[in-house]
Amino acid sequence: MNNSYNHSLSANSKLTQISANRCFDGEQHYYSHQSSATKTQMTFSIYLPDEALAGHRCPAVLYLSGLTCNADNVTHKAHFQKKCSELGMIFIAPDTSPRSSEDNDVPNDERYFVGQGASYYVDATQAPWAENFNMQSYIVDELYDLLRSEFSIDSIGVTGHSMGGHGALLLGFKFPSKFISVSALSPVCSASESAWGQAAYTEYFGDDDDLKSQADAAKTIEAVGQQYSMILVDQGAADNFLAEGQLQTAKLQDACEKAKQPLTLRYQAGHDHSYYFIQSVIDDHIEHHWRMAQLN
Amino acid sequence: MNNSYNHSLSANSKLTQISANRCFDGEQHYYSHQSSATKTQMTFSIYLPDEALAGHRCPAVLYLSGLTCNADNVTHKAHFQKKCSELGMIFIAPDTSPRSSEDNDVPNDERYFVGQGASYYVDATQAPWAENFNMQSYIVDELYDLLRSEFSIDSIGVTGHSMGGHGALLLGFKFPSKFISVSALSPVCSASESAWGQAAYTEYFGDDDDLKSQADAAKTIEAVGQQYSMILVDQGAADNFLAEGQLQTAKLQDACEKAKQPLTLRYQAGHDHSYYFIQSVIDDHIEHHWRMAQLN
Repeated sequence: MNNSYNHSLSANSKLTQISANRCFDGEQHYYSHQSSATKTQMTFSIYLPDEALAGHRCPAVLYLSGLTCNADNVTHKAHFQKKCSELGMIFIAPDTSPRSSEDNDVPNDERYFVGQGASYYVDATQAPWAENFNMQSYIVDELYDLLRSEFSIDSIGVTGHSMGGHGALLLGFKFPSKFISVSALSPVCSASESAWGQAAYTEYFGDDDDLKSQADAAKTIEAVGQQYSMILVDQGAADNFLAEGQLQTAKLQDACEKAKQPLTLRYQAGHDHSYYFIQSVIDDHIEHHWRMAQLN
Repeated sequence: MNNSYNHSLSANSKLTQISANRCFDGEQHYYSHQSSATKTQMTFSIYLPDEALAGHRCPAVLYLSGLTCNADNVTHKAHFQKKCSELGMIFIAPDTSPRSSEDNDVPNDERYFVGQGASYYVDATQAPWAENFNMQSYIVDELYDLLRSEFSIDSIGVTGHSMGGHGALLLGFKFPSKFISVSALSPVCSASESAWGQAAYTEYFGDDDDLKSQADAAKTIEAVGQQYSMILVDQGAADNFLAEGQLQTAKLQDACEKAKQPLTLRYQAGHDHSYYFIQSVIDDHIEHHWRMAQLN
């Protein structure tokens, strides 16, 4: 662990610093903490530009990752640090679910789209998931408050990829007072109508169709109407999951039309579902959240 | 595997494409091939901007990775793709050594700085290493010729990190007719006088001190004199391996002075030895190689 890193946690902080590395004009940090929402240790990464390290309040963007990922994938592969350094933007990447550990036996499933790595950022109501799989409460209450108390954050926007793009759209429209801006990359647009999401929601919500609809991004947007002056969504045109029907981008477009929610939806020729796509458009998303933060 | 990727290999090509992903205005590819130099399958990554995919000859930079790495680390974590896309630059990342496989039992060592992942880009003369550990010949002859025959390459510069920074300096000054430009990130500057390199060279060269000196970057620069109008080296000032004496940056500075080799050496405050450092300066290295290619 290096000695030149500058952020001081509060007295009696719940956070433990795992690592800190200088990166452009800022620092990439990792923290862990015991979560009351998930009853597990949770880990997140946070990029702090020098402005934030110096105590200046900066806009932040919360990035929700996709199936199978943890905080590492986006932190290593999305290439967000340079733009965040240039603009003075904080970038936060939580894990995608609670995880088993030596002290903690968290439920799981053999399918990569259910269980650990596949929370869909909802609060499960069914056993055995309800005990730990409370990622909505984790993100919008526990982590949200912890970030605001421990770091020099002005406003928070939300974005994400694939399952995390669904999470960004869902949480952004369910909790518009918490988030100043919303964007998504290759989002699952309607979890309750995709094969991945149907499998997960049957586990997490049983046969309660109301709960499944309330945990569906496109249906939530249609139900609550316009919340943001503009949302930005990028989708690779050569994404095999789009072709397979997991993403259903047209449902998002339809929901935004009905909700009169302005949407910038871009199909990127040749691009697939990978982090090679994410890195190709992430700067535009950071700039979107930056602009929205400046307008408020 | 996606279907929208454009590069055609030659008839009877020795290369097998492993993957291809659209990334910015270009494609990130991986290839494998049977190497005659190492007698193993070797894998490399190559970023091809659209100019190269369209058949326009582009400058290329060959990046030699550090201890324990393979082609993935730099390809995922160094964030070179955006700048290469903007400039129309090809970026090639070979593996750091031959590897064992199901068909092939390559020598190894328990120490992370000897054996697989730690070739130092030299041709070993001692058993059991001499059979496979011929990475100098692999890089400057076999891979070099293969790249030129299979891709639309104009000139080739060489760079690298840590052990690979040593490789870039060593091969750049031993084979100046092959490379148009040289740079290095956090290089081991004098392998024959670092603890890592001494352990490796004792295995690869036995007690032949002449061979060890001929495989030493600083000594080679001093012996052959100026070869490039300028070389660029970045070093993190908070790099623990610098403090431990593995890198010996002062020996490079001294060798360049004696050789009258112009050197831009930058110490970057707060930065360590990680890919968070590499990504923070890689654009400057790509631009250095780009400028040198334009001058020729």
